[in-house]
Amino acid sequence: MASRVIALMTDFGKEDFFVASLKGTILKINPLARIVDITHRVPSFDVFASSFVLFSTFQYFPLQTIFLVIVDPGVGSSRKILLAETKNYFFIAPDNGVLSLVIEKDEIKQIRKVTNEKFFLPNPSSTFEGRDKMAPVAAWLSKEVPCEEFGHEVSHYKKVSEKRPQVRGNEILGRILYVDKFGNLITNVPFQMVDFLREKRNVEMISLFVKNTEILSFKKNYSSAKKGELLFLGGSLGLIEIAVREGSACEKLKAETGDEVRIITRCET
Amino acid sequence: MASRVIALMTDFGKEDFFVASLKGTILKINPLARIVDITHRVPSFDVFASSFVLFSTFQYFPLQTIFLVIVDPGVGSSRKILLAETKNYFFIAPDNGVLSLVIEKDEIKQIRKVTNEKFFLPNPSSTFEGRDKMAPVAAWLSKEVPCEEFGHEVSHYKKVSEKRPQVRGNEILGRILYVDKFGNLITNVPFQMVDFLREKRNVEMISLFVKNTEILSFKKNYSSAKKGELLFLGGSLGLIEIAVREGSACEKLKAETGDEVRIITRCET
Amino acid sequence: MASRVIALMTDFGKEDFFVASLKGTILKINPLARIVDITHRVPSFDVFASSFVLFSTFQYFPLQTIFLVIVDPGVGSSRKILLAETKNYFFIAPDNGVLSLVIEKDEIKQIRKVTNEKFFLPNPSSTFEGRDKMAPVAAWLSKEVPCEEFGHEVSHYKKVSEKRPQVRGNEILGRILYVDKFGNLITNVPFQMVDFLREKRNVEMISLFVKNTEILSFKKNYSSAKKGELLFLGGSLGLIEIAVREGSACEKLKAETGDEVRIITRCET
Repeated sequence: MASRVIALMTDFGKEDFFVASLKGTILKINPLARIVDITHRVPSFDVFASSFVLFSTFQYFPLQTIFLVIVDPGVGSSRKILLAETKNYFFIAPDNGVLSLVIEKDEIKQIRKVTNEKFFLPNPSSTFEGRDKMAPVAAWLSKEVPCEEFGHEVSHYKKVSEKRPQVRGNEILGRILYVDKFGNLITNVPFQMVDFLREKRNVEMISLFVKNTEILSFKKNYSSAKKGELLFLGGSLGLIEIAVREGSACEKLKAETGDEVRIITRCET
Repeated sequence: MASRVIALMTDFGKEDFFVASLKGTILKINPLARIVDITHRVPSFDVFASSFVLFSTFQYFPLQTIFLVIVDPGVGSSRKILLAETKNYFFIAPDNGVLSLVIEKDEIKQIRKVTNEKFFLPNPSSTFEGRDKMAPVAAWLSKEVPCEEFGHEVSHYKKVSEKRPQVRGNEILGRILYVDKFGNLITNVPFQMVDFLREKRNVEMISLFVKNTEILSFKKNYSSAKKGELLFLGGSLGLIEIAVREGSACEKLKAETGDEVRIITRCET
Repeated sequence: MASRVIALMTDFGKEDFFVASLKGTILKINPLARIVDITHRVPSFDVFASSFVLFSTFQYFPLQTIFLVIVDPGVGSSRKILLAETKNYFFIAPDNGVLSLVIEKDEIKQIRKVTNEKFFLPNPSSTFEGRDKMAPVAAWLSKEVPCEEFGHEVSHYKKVSEKRPQVRGNEILGRILYVDKFGNLITNVPFQMVDFLREKRNVEMISLFVKNTEILSFKKNYSSAKKGELLFLGGSLGLIEIAVREGSACEKLKAETGDEVRIITRCET
């Protein structure tokens, strides 16, 4: 049987020795480990962006995948290292909120504070816990060491603030959660929320306001728009996205993470 | 026996969740899949550059490798998803021309339009066909599902325009096809074409014109030139390249893809 | 048993076809090869930075890992391709100094000049020896072909200059060896050297001078400092590093590789 997948996400970049040391450490403990990179280029120290990237991809991975997430402004401080088991997956990460979106979505079975030094490298450094503590724990877990061995259960863990969208009459108020590589602006508004509003009411027109711009073009996919046209649509994560066909909505609108969006429906009278 | 290699090429970048979702999807279907990244950094939406990168590397891969190529300005539009089997390989890509160079080089056995929803993820989104349709098809193909199962054969597919070099007397007229990471300018002129001209005629001098600059230094390799010197040579793809030793020909000449080059031979009299 | 790991380090970047061609070539020869990327983004042609990155990570890899290192301003020139076997590892690299730090650290068993064309691709190009000679040699070595088969032993090889730190009374004079992705400045001064000085003498105060700035904050880890504060500490490589908590020491100090650092201790009187 194939060994559990270990999926890595860090803010280490790929130009240095950091990621390589994680992989070497894992392979030294479990030569059959199957390691997959999620990304090593989330913005440095940005816990929310990291939690969003993880949230956007984890469910596509095989059951029992171990997610090793190292985005960690507080390395070496007193914050805990967490090991979480959910219905379908395992997660190892610092207790800084980066896991809260995913573990709550996938149903928490147990959360432990990793303390058993037996599974760490000898003489762990105080500045690279990823290599010296977290990677070895992931490797041992991929060899099916039971969660209980790594430390005792905890009942509290840090959460990122979730910023849910709000419906007010014929409006939905939301925010930009993430700007992807193409400059698409991913909002926190579920497509279904818009769809529901549209069906419930007898909607004639729908538009989205962002950065003092009104976008009227609500499409099924990018290529329904003209080249260079601003549009909004239900994206691949089930969330409303703002895009420019073959261009960057981020550049065109000078928008960024955190900016407000308003979706307004107007009904037939 | 090892499972077929799946080689990925996209314009998704590595900073987001896109590539990870492809890999997770593949591993969920085929836990033994061997996934290799070609690159995820071809210029966004640039079909020709992508087809050239693929062309430059595919023959180095093991027989039966499955190339999954997702560079796709037309995602969600009515353009087809193609599955091509050639003499030695398989290719999955949108029907936008990105495959034409390679499949014609490797001898086409069959080309099919992928339509069988049985092999897609449930409820595929209209904006991320790579994850929801193409990656699962690649995964099933790596498990040796026969090509016939994915859809019916087609006889037409899109091609990129090829821009072949021309010989006129003692001149070869060509173009810059690609600028690599070092700033080397790769042309469409085969080294053999120059070699042939040189042998057939009693050539005394050979030079290359590009961007109003004449380059006289025709070398066997980079290190035959002085540091900083402009030269041209037969590169590792069998094509004439323009280079600067330990420098960037692209920067030095302000040249780019599409620029014309002329190679001129002068004979003994 | 799992096949030997092949760890790749190059200055090729990931945007082109270079790295993919190495991997394809390896997998064609050894379908079971386990390939790990160290990095492909060391600064172009920078032999010292490459040797330092390799030095910083190699010991975390499994025994018998084969390190394939292609950073090569002299490609195609007369410089040799080396195959080194040390106590625990194998290394393949051009003879340009990139291996000297690691092989001396891990105890050299044999060094050979790779010459046996039987293990090269047919008709190797003169500009991409990595693909045509070095990658195939790594692949055959991962299939446990004995070192003797690849070429004869050599007694000389190029070395990078090592720049050891010096102790003068109550001062240590060192240099910045490497700037990592976070802007941390890694020096050549071992933490133990500072620790030793501190214990031997009755040290009351310790400070570090770099770029006309005196840093007084000597910490155990990043998070012992305030956000934005300059500090120095014993880093994860056992070397003194200069850092800014959640910021870039490189930017703040306008410092770079090669800059001098002085660590000064003052004793109780």
